[in-house]
Amino acid sequence: MSETSTTAETGGDAGAAGAHLVVIGADATGMAAASQARRHLDARALRITVFEAGAHASYSACGIPYWVGGLVDSREDLIARTPAEHRARDIDLRLHTRVVEIDVPGRRVRTRAGDTGAESWTCYDKLVIATGARPIRPDLPGIDAEGVYGVQTLDDGEALIAGLERTEGRRAVVVGAGYIGVEMAEALVQRGFLVRVLHRGAAPMTTLDPDMGGKVAEAMRGIGIEVVCGAEAVAVRTGPDGRVRAVATADGDEYPADVVVLGLGVRPDTDLARAAGLPLGESGGLLTDLSMRVRGHTDIWAGGDCVEVRDLVTGRDRHIPLGTHANKHGQVIGAVVAGGYATFPGVVGTAVSKICALEVARTGLLEQDAHAAGLQFVTVTIESTSRAGYYPDAAPMTVKMLAERHTGRLLGVQIVGREGAAKRVDVAAVALTAGMTVEQMTALDLGYAPPFSPVWDPVLVAARKAVRAVRERG
Amino acid sequence: MSETSTTAETGGDAGAAGAHLVVIGADATGMAAASQARRHLDARALRITVFEAGAHASYSACGIPYWVGGLVDSREDLIARTPAEHRARDIDLRLHTRVVEIDVPGRRVRTRAGDTGAESWTCYDKLVIATGARPIRPDLPGIDAEGVYGVQTLDDGEALIAGLERTEGRRAVVVGAGYIGVEMAEALVQRGFLVRVLHRGAAPMTTLDPDMGGKVAEAMRGIGIEVVCGAEAVAVRTGPDGRVRAVATADGDEYPADVVVLGLGVRPDTDLARAAGLPLGESGGLLTDLSMRVRGHTDIWAGGDCVEVRDLVTGRDRHIPLGTHANKHGQVIGAVVAGGYATFPGVVGTAVSKICALEVARTGLLEQDAHAAGLQFVTVTIESTSRAGYYPDAAPMTVKMLAERHTGRLLGVQIVGREGAAKRVDVAAVALTAGMTVEQMTALDLGYAPPFSPVWDPVLVAARKAVRAVRERG
Repeated sequence: MSETSTTAETGGDAGAAGAHLVVIGADATGMAAASQARRHLDARALRITVFEAGAHASYSACGIPYWVGGLVDSREDLIARTPAEHRARDIDLRLHTRVVEIDVPGRRVRTRAGDTGAESWTCYDKLVIATGARPIRPDLPGIDAEGVYGVQTLDDGEALIAGLERTEGRRAVVVGAGYIGVEMAEALVQRGFLVRVLHRGAAPMTTLDPDMGGKVAEAMRGIGIEVVCGAEAVAVRTGPDGRVRAVATADGDEYPADVVVLGLGVRPDTDLARAAGLPLGESGGLLTDLSMRVRGHTDIWAGGDCVEVRDLVTGRDRHIPLGTHANKHGQVIGAVVAGGYATFPGVVGTAVSKICALEVARTGLLEQDAHAAGLQFVTVTIESTSRAGYYPDAAPMTVKMLAERHTGRLLGVQIVGREGAAKRVDVAAVALTAGMTVEQMTALDLGYAPPFSPVWDPVLVAARKAVRAVRERG
Repeated sequence: MSETSTTAETGGDAGAAGAHLVVIGADATGMAAASQARRHLDARALRITVFEAGAHASYSACGIPYWVGGLVDSREDLIARTPAEHRARDIDLRLHTRVVEIDVPGRRVRTRAGDTGAESWTCYDKLVIATGARPIRPDLPGIDAEGVYGVQTLDDGEALIAGLERTEGRRAVVVGAGYIGVEMAEALVQRGFLVRVLHRGAAPMTTLDPDMGGKVAEAMRGIGIEVVCGAEAVAVRTGPDGRVRAVATADGDEYPADVVVLGLGVRPDTDLARAAGLPLGESGGLLTDLSMRVRGHTDIWAGGDCVEVRDLVTGRDRHIPLGTHANKHGQVIGAVVAGGYATFPGVVGTAVSKICALEVARTGLLEQDAHAAGLQFVTVTIESTSRAGYYPDAAPMTVKMLAERHTGRLLGVQIVGREGAAKRVDVAAVALTAGMTVEQMTALDLGYAPPFSPVWDPVLVAARKAVRAVRERG
């Protein structure tokens, strides 16, 4: 395993007086990088300028569905650190200022002010690209109609909430059933909408295999969400007022809608990087080395939702936009920019969600991922409970496990259950990182007490079954 | 890492017709071993006889405090499999039958019937010793008085509940504040007793460092338990009726008591093994090899609370009586006895408890353990929350982490918090098993979503701080 650190050594070339660090994007990666760099070098040693096209910095995008759903009261709750706090630490944060060009040979960026449109060039010694991701917005007729929303930034969330408050009708259609689509569907139910989710695939939660996703569909239906699978949206119909009226699908159906939320996932926002000739991967994300330096470029770093990350299970680069990676990237970049040493070795593909009363988790490879990687494997699925069976409120839990044929190496785990289900996946995430076999996992010394687990933790029950499957399959 | 498996190969010498497996003790290890052996060999290939001194088999001793406290309705809820179910699988289970001697050279055991006292010899080809542990009952004046209870077996639990129902007074004293003492104190509160806990040490929960144990004391006091630390019981005072009346401590105080529960921990119940000349360790537990075979004896296995286990962090043998190990031992023994291959590589010292609203967890070494092992280390303690700070019901959590000096190898983690705290320790348990450094841990891809974790999981926050401490300490 490689190592990640976030502590800078003192000194280093970045300590040269007057070096200028320019950061593009003031969300998790950008502000973590700026803050971490500032912890190690003061304003005389490093000048830091952050350009942000939007109106906000340092907010939790992951919290937006809970704000829309009313679980979180206000926008301010989602802001980890205000612009004033950043400025007090000598970080020159310029909101409403979009970077429109990176001139790599000239080591400068061109910016455009949001209010006046005035443009200017800013030189950098070191550049951090943290432009994040954009909601996928398919090129459908009517997709830009009033009442159609993507949800990625705090500004998006604000626009959606304002739109929901203006909307008289109560019919919402969510297009796409990735985790954002599913979380938004629940938030819309909480706001009193009648919600229908249109999904191209066989089951919602594309981060799970369809058999496990089916359990999510059940839970969604349980709170009154209509889940329509095999439904590919092909057009947004609008009324005479230009507002959305319905969503049309490939098989000729029309689903009436007063509001449409796009939950089709996101793609890296790398137009700037592409125009500048920086290296992009298959998913369109920037490619970096282990210290998050853009490949082939000494003074440019990138991290967060605009990069691809190394999948430690397959060795391939993938686009996995998650706030937790974005924060780690920012810490690594900040340390390295300040002359320290740090790396981000990669991910194993862990994700957890709460959907209605259901907890959903995955790590490692889905069946389709394993096939695509050329791996042969066995899969097992077991039913267990969150606590000892006799302890009050023991809740059912389903664990699916993939293990490599012959070697028995753990390849992936998916868990669907109730309270206490999701974070159990962390055990498998560490085991994947350590390259453990399912046989080694059966001996893991996991915490046991009746309020927390059956005497065999569900993850271990799955590992035991996987051991037998590996032996039988040979 | 070594491997544990629980699947027997077909064949093997145990498959010889008419072999006789004798098991001493019908709790977790004994019955798991018998059941696992039976899965692989039928009654023609292997005769199985289990002797149990008590009245019950296959019960969850860990559940007794919840039964006493009223969270679990009845004794039957704690019984995983009835004697009739075992007998239906051709396991000859003899309750109320105590083994009083093991004749190793003669390959036979002498038994005594509980009702008649009649004795007889039974020959074995293979022997499993699963005699468990006994509550520590210090040799104090009055310790055997009516109203003084130890709690280890289901019979003990039954006697205690009957005693509590008979007792008119409401004053309970718990002697000792290990996890059983603390769990019993809470159970007694739930039954309406006024509870006082007398504890020799500086803080309750001897499985934690005192600074973390102090948080447990607070929680106990919060539900009205009086916690008296630095109080060593020296005598049980009795009234004219011979019943307990008070507990006297070394500093001359007397604590009135209508009932006394001993929570001083347990010791291996190995009198039989000692008399038979079998090898015992420093804690008095049987010593086995990796396949749970008693060292130096080809046809005798032992597991559960009567053995010592390898501590994978220090390499030493320790006595760690926990149901989860006992079950794993039984599975390994059953597979090996049936001619299969399986091992129990050892433990890392994971334990979790729920005390009032508090969740408490530890894995690896306490400070005193690390000192005793000759290790130099740094410790860090951090405060974090169970969920994103803005998400409803985010609860505080304290994580303490020990890392080896120079190498940064993880040595131990302790967690005290509320909902969602305890099972987070599993991440550290797997990291310990894999021999990770705290620096490697900072890159772990743990599940993140606002309902489950801050963007940096508390365990990772502690790891980051530990990295800095290792560097500063050098």
